[in-house]
Amino acid sequence: MFQINENYQKLPGSYLFSTIAKKVAAFSQANPDKQIIRLGIGDVTQPIAPAIIEAMHKAVDEMGVQETFRGYAPDLGYEFLRNAIAKNDYEARGCDIAADEIFVSDGAKSDSGNIQEIFGADVKIAVCDPVYPVYVDSNVMAGRCGDYDANTGMWSNVIYMPCTKENGFVPEFPKENPDVIYLCLPNNPTGTTITKSRLQEWVDYANRIGAVIIYDGAYEAYISEDDVAHTIYECEGAKTCAIELKSFSKNAGFTGVRLGYTVVPKELKCGDVSVHGMWARRHGTKFNGAPYIIQRAGEAVYSDAGKAQLKEQVAYYMNNAKTIKTGLQEAGYEVFGGVNAPYIWLKTPGKMTSWEFFDYLLENANVVGTPGSGFGPSGEGYFRLTAFGSHKNTVAALERIKAL
Amino acid sequence: MFQINENYQKLPGSYLFSTIAKKVAAFSQANPDKQIIRLGIGDVTQPIAPAIIEAMHKAVDEMGVQETFRGYAPDLGYEFLRNAIAKNDYEARGCDIAADEIFVSDGAKSDSGNIQEIFGADVKIAVCDPVYPVYVDSNVMAGRCGDYDANTGMWSNVIYMPCTKENGFVPEFPKENPDVIYLCLPNNPTGTTITKSRLQEWVDYANRIGAVIIYDGAYEAYISEDDVAHTIYECEGAKTCAIELKSFSKNAGFTGVRLGYTVVPKELKCGDVSVHGMWARRHGTKFNGAPYIIQRAGEAVYSDAGKAQLKEQVAYYMNNAKTIKTGLQEAGYEVFGGVNAPYIWLKTPGKMTSWEFFDYLLENANVVGTPGSGFGPSGEGYFRLTAFGSHKNTVAALERIKAL
Repeated sequence: MFQINENYQKLPGSYLFSTIAKKVAAFSQANPDKQIIRLGIGDVTQPIAPAIIEAMHKAVDEMGVQETFRGYAPDLGYEFLRNAIAKNDYEARGCDIAADEIFVSDGAKSDSGNIQEIFGADVKIAVCDPVYPVYVDSNVMAGRCGDYDANTGMWSNVIYMPCTKENGFVPEFPKENPDVIYLCLPNNPTGTTITKSRLQEWVDYANRIGAVIIYDGAYEAYISEDDVAHTIYECEGAKTCAIELKSFSKNAGFTGVRLGYTVVPKELKCGDVSVHGMWARRHGTKFNGAPYIIQRAGEAVYSDAGKAQLKEQVAYYMNNAKTIKTGLQEAGYEVFGGVNAPYIWLKTPGKMTSWEFFDYLLENANVVGTPGSGFGPSGEGYFRLTAFGSHKNTVAALERIKAL
Repeated sequence: MFQINENYQKLPGSYLFSTIAKKVAAFSQANPDKQIIRLGIGDVTQPIAPAIIEAMHKAVDEMGVQETFRGYAPDLGYEFLRNAIAKNDYEARGCDIAADEIFVSDGAKSDSGNIQEIFGADVKIAVCDPVYPVYVDSNVMAGRCGDYDANTGMWSNVIYMPCTKENGFVPEFPKENPDVIYLCLPNNPTGTTITKSRLQEWVDYANRIGAVIIYDGAYEAYISEDDVAHTIYECEGAKTCAIELKSFSKNAGFTGVRLGYTVVPKELKCGDVSVHGMWARRHGTKFNGAPYIIQRAGEAVYSDAGKAQLKEQVAYYMNNAKTIKTGLQEAGYEVFGGVNAPYIWLKTPGKMTSWEFFDYLLENANVVGTPGSGFGPSGEGYFRLTAFGSHKNTVAALERIKAL
């Protein structure tokens, strides 16, 4: 009889956002007259910018004509896109990342789930707590996390780096040395970030102990303060210790378009083995490229028109963030984030747990947020709201919350 | 110091098609005046059908407007597509596969690489020999295949089922019981297939020994004979032992569009654990859906106009297959396949190895094919040509081969 991967059995319950979706669906069915406002999952609501739409129409037309039809894409992604990324996201910031160190993918969620595959079965991972669930869950599936303790909400073989209001949401170096460190900055879910000099300390630490940093920069476009790094490669020495994951979901609204990329510098090695070569092999064996049409959409993100339109889109969402943040403050909540990220992280009132507050908000304000405890034990007593709704809905949601 | 996944180090050389691409590039650079005809990699050349182009334009427009914009897709894929698949690919063939047993993906290559993750670390796999390299390579990466013997071209812990002209390219039940059996039918690379009654015997065998069949049906659209199953679920009992992978790459030319799906029946269980639930969890954790625009393209494949246009496209390629097959026969080659599949599998002349014939054909006819040995040890002495070129190029290639 065939055997299954028993590690899957260790995963408690289902994926956070599936659970939320089920709860909301049940509430909606029981209360068909209620207008629910969703500020929960980090999904965007603004339509794709005109310059990108135009690029996709053009690419669709090309696919319909013999002379311009494109079949399988190059393994790493089309050069036109990799060159645009290298130029705009790295060269323009003084970072020396070559186009062939960039791997185009179908999104940062896939990359953040798959990246662990290239590491040894026994590597010890460190994650911020709270954290995006995919980092831990994908390592659980690979058997690296030990056992789950339902009381603490923690895995026995994962190093947790608590990020709470007590330490200003800045992770500290763990007591035990990790092999692989996941850092998402600006942070999901807390909406906070760290200074460039603090990030440099992390890079130095990783190089010193021989760890790899998986740097998730999905929210980079929302950085508004000067002393925050837009890429980890702004830090000296990052090319020997860091892999960077980037998404087009939040800067260009591609949650339903699906595009991302991963940077694996050629200098990143384990002994004399090139990690770049390993990821290239993984990419070439288990993936067949992002659609041509979508890669052209990605290219348009970097056009002059695209940049201008997306700057407006980011400003629109950050205006929502401000609305949420000030609204919650006026309502007496203790609030974090929302300055360099589209997430607002609030302390639940009284002694409410995160899920109690979720139910309270859903039932009384018909507003959907995300329970902080869903992101890890240190998220208990916190709650995430996102700035990705329409402005009208955001204003309405805050009015309802203030009226509670 | 972090550790890498040492299994990657066991993989010999690079992915077959990357090696071919490099050889062709080198030849091309050295002989810029030669017109190379590529009948190697299974990439299509006909443009996307008009009905599909129209559907994509419509979907692109929807993404550009607030009211019709779509963010994250449902985990398993949009219902409109899953319903179309269930109705056309299963219900129409008398197979009871529900829409929620269908998982939409970014292509069958990803699925065939990823599916092994849900099985135990020690399951023993069986593959046809020759075989599509992804099945074995993805299991090597997971540490299941033992060690590679460069002399035999075989892995110590893989069960090989030779498919040669001696057994009519029909795999026989192995002596040792496997846990997971990969079957690609109609077959890549041999272009041959087996009868429905023989497939039923495989289903019965798998149920008897408690094995799972990973059934890759990527070439189903090319079946021309009556006694060949279009899906494994035409066989009695397949729902308790088979996972089916399907691609839109070959029936609709989506190699650069990227869309596929995997069927995991709810009845497929290991003890009381639902394999369907495991794949749903994998899908929900490490994947974020195929693009909305591309899923609409997939839906259009099943429209009346789409069906009619794609029937013509398949006929176009099968006409090429006939041109290749008869042309090679006229040139004195021993030829297989090409009746229910777009691949022609030929015996190399004299005592030439597959790679010798590759070089011979590239240098003397400037035609690129794929060496049979790249697909496994029993592929040595064989060579694959594909029917996916343009008709003009196919005719020209055969004229050159006949003139050798």
